[in-house]
Amino acid sequence: MTDIERANQIAVERMMAARPILRRVARAADVIPALRGRMLLHAGPPITWERVSGPLRGAMIGACLYEGWAAHAPAAEELLQSGGVPWEPCHHHGAVGPMAGVTSPSMQVYVVENVTHGNFAYATLNEGYGKVLRYGAYSEEVLAKLRWMNEVMGPILAAALELSGEGIDIRALLAESLHMGDEGHNRNKAGSIVYTARLAPWIVRVAGDKETAAAVLKFLADNALSVLNPVMAACKAMADAAHGVEGSTLMTAMARNGTDLGIRVSGLGDRWFTGPAGVPDGLYFPGFTVADANRDIGDSTITETAGIGAFAMAAAPAIVTFVSGTPQDAINATLEMYEITVAEHTAFSIPALGFRGTPTGVDIRKVVELGITPRINTGIAHREAGVGQVGAGLVRPPLAVFEDALVAYAEQYLN
Amino acid sequence: MTDIERANQIAVERMMAARPILRRVARAADVIPALRGRMLLHAGPPITWERVSGPLRGAMIGACLYEGWAAHAPAAEELLQSGGVPWEPCHHHGAVGPMAGVTSPSMQVYVVENVTHGNFAYATLNEGYGKVLRYGAYSEEVLAKLRWMNEVMGPILAAALELSGEGIDIRALLAESLHMGDEGHNRNKAGSIVYTARLAPWIVRVAGDKETAAAVLKFLADNALSVLNPVMAACKAMADAAHGVEGSTLMTAMARNGTDLGIRVSGLGDRWFTGPAGVPDGLYFPGFTVADANRDIGDSTITETAGIGAFAMAAAPAIVTFVSGTPQDAINATLEMYEITVAEHTAFSIPALGFRGTPTGVDIRKVVELGITPRINTGIAHREAGVGQVGAGLVRPPLAVFEDALVAYAEQYLN
Repeated sequence: MTDIERANQIAVERMMAARPILRRVARAADVIPALRGRMLLHAGPPITWERVSGPLRGAMIGACLYEGWAAHAPAAEELLQSGGVPWEPCHHHGAVGPMAGVTSPSMQVYVVENVTHGNFAYATLNEGYGKVLRYGAYSEEVLAKLRWMNEVMGPILAAALELSGEGIDIRALLAESLHMGDEGHNRNKAGSIVYTARLAPWIVRVAGDKETAAAVLKFLADNALSVLNPVMAACKAMADAAHGVEGSTLMTAMARNGTDLGIRVSGLGDRWFTGPAGVPDGLYFPGFTVADANRDIGDSTITETAGIGAFAMAAAPAIVTFVSGTPQDAINATLEMYEITVAEHTAFSIPALGFRGTPTGVDIRKVVELGITPRINTGIAHREAGVGQVGAGLVRPPLAVFEDALVAYAEQYLN
Repeated sequence: MTDIERANQIAVERMMAARPILRRVARAADVIPALRGRMLLHAGPPITWERVSGPLRGAMIGACLYEGWAAHAPAAEELLQSGGVPWEPCHHHGAVGPMAGVTSPSMQVYVVENVTHGNFAYATLNEGYGKVLRYGAYSEEVLAKLRWMNEVMGPILAAALELSGEGIDIRALLAESLHMGDEGHNRNKAGSIVYTARLAPWIVRVAGDKETAAAVLKFLADNALSVLNPVMAACKAMADAAHGVEGSTLMTAMARNGTDLGIRVSGLGDRWFTGPAGVPDGLYFPGFTVADANRDIGDSTITETAGIGAFAMAAAPAIVTFVSGTPQDAINATLEMYEITVAEHTAFSIPALGFRGTPTGVDIRKVVELGITPRINTGIAHREAGVGQVGAGLVRPPLAVFEDALVAYAEQYLN
């Protein structure tokens, strides 16, 4: 085993040994120091206003309205453009967010602790389908739902988790869901109801009245993505555990802001290697076509980074009705990802592949050598601010970001 | 198409067109006329006391104790032996029960209506794992759980279903679960939490207090078989819809009482064709071996009769950790069942087989011609009364019952 291989083994074993426990729900401002003042977090690598994509712009506008920093969209846009509200990547603050990923101070976030290594990760509450902030919509309906989620449901989830006492082992929940047809990124149907059912007895106990308890249970149970956000925070906690291993070529973050896709590498510090995010190939909702699609967006590729999502497609043959393809394509997707990864996950297994562990830990050297980029399952946002989701599909990052990272690795380590 | 083929098409189309809706929960005595007086229903074809298997005897004793008809086990046994409490098959009364299947007057039952054809079917509430009546255990702990289920949980489920107003479409729930790794017989993990989550908001509203609501939600969510009994009643409602088609060789019931296995055939009236039930081949709990196993028992083979269970194994590769075998065996099990069935289900599909419909409607002619008997997934009961479950596995009915049925068919139709 070479030094690089040894470093990668250390990194991937840290990733797999990480045990992410959903501990609590708290106001973002109370757990993410940067959000104590006026600031927004967003998905993907850093981005300047001129290059911000439509859905991210929409979500940032929506967050300014939600926080009461602006009275209407043009004022919010002016505020953002003039520097009145700065923004930074979620990833710079231990957080991740699906799609636009916009996180503002008064939003509630899931707090996940990796009890093996002691690091924390955060993610907002999932809004469900339809017109939602994360896809760039910001109508009054969108903001009203956000208010209910953050002011009514969030505190109930917080109290339920606190009363239950023990937290929820998200790695175990994911392992279970992968045996129930989920891949953990675009399909979280089983995981979301397992999560709802696990919390239900505690929600009932802490809710102020029956109707509120019933409304929270219905919201969680009807949303097949309820558990996506805790899962993303768990994957972030696992991936972060693998970051910073001297000499490792393991990818520890992959994220998109709707303009650029960026990756980080375990042995290369906090630097992003970026390139243009692709346009997903997938199925569109009635009335929409690829012409409406924004470039790929979101931190949710932290799932693929941690060995699930598109990497675990073989566990979720039913997903092809949502993202296009055949069940055999789903099997092939997972098999291909073994080519560019360094381990088979010790906690996540795929029944249809004889309980083989999911392909885990992308080695950027293998990506460049084989020309095989990581697969990504994703939702598709409309390219204009204020619209929302238009479909779901499959995409890959540009090979050049892995080549750039490998050049940087050579410069740092091989001189 | 021959006359027999046409009759079988009519029968299987009725089976697949049946739409079973879980309407309500009620006391057995209030919806099954035979249970107005002292009477027990049991799984499988009719059986005399001398030939009653250990687990069925245990469950019958337990039911007598539960109803207060006897003060202790010897008295219950004396009562049963002396004719003080008669018993008849569940199947004779529109009911089905897992394992021993014993149903007594004051137990709560699910009431399922096939809204396509108007027939009804019934099944008790599932007791979960561990020491339970359906496996022949009857200790005070078993009876105490039965009391809580029937006196506390049952009325809450009844009120929840009534308040929700619309009932639960069990065929749709099964279709969903087959895409979530269930096969609907031994693996109902996804279906059970989908069922729990669907009812949760209503349970919260109708329960008298928070702790009771929480206890019911926890009981349903923790039991991966919660939905088995409504599923069985739904399958009974579907299978009954296919029964009584003149000239049809379709199997419309298959059931075991722990001694005999019996089948019924659509065109052959209410007659049972019986033979010795097999001993399942499977995995045993620690401390038990095949020497502890009773012969196969239960009405739960109504699932295979209706095109799920072992027939849908390919949808549930993870089940092999419970019943033995490999994921490829699970695929092969389903593929083999296409050989002896007359249709692919229009509502139940298997993602891993390219969304092919499950093999549905066993033609007894094909069974005899090919020598391929239906596959069965099952739990394994201890052979002695009062013990309980010792494992889970796979079994097949004896070929002779299909041969006998075919001879009877020839006598009735081909003279």
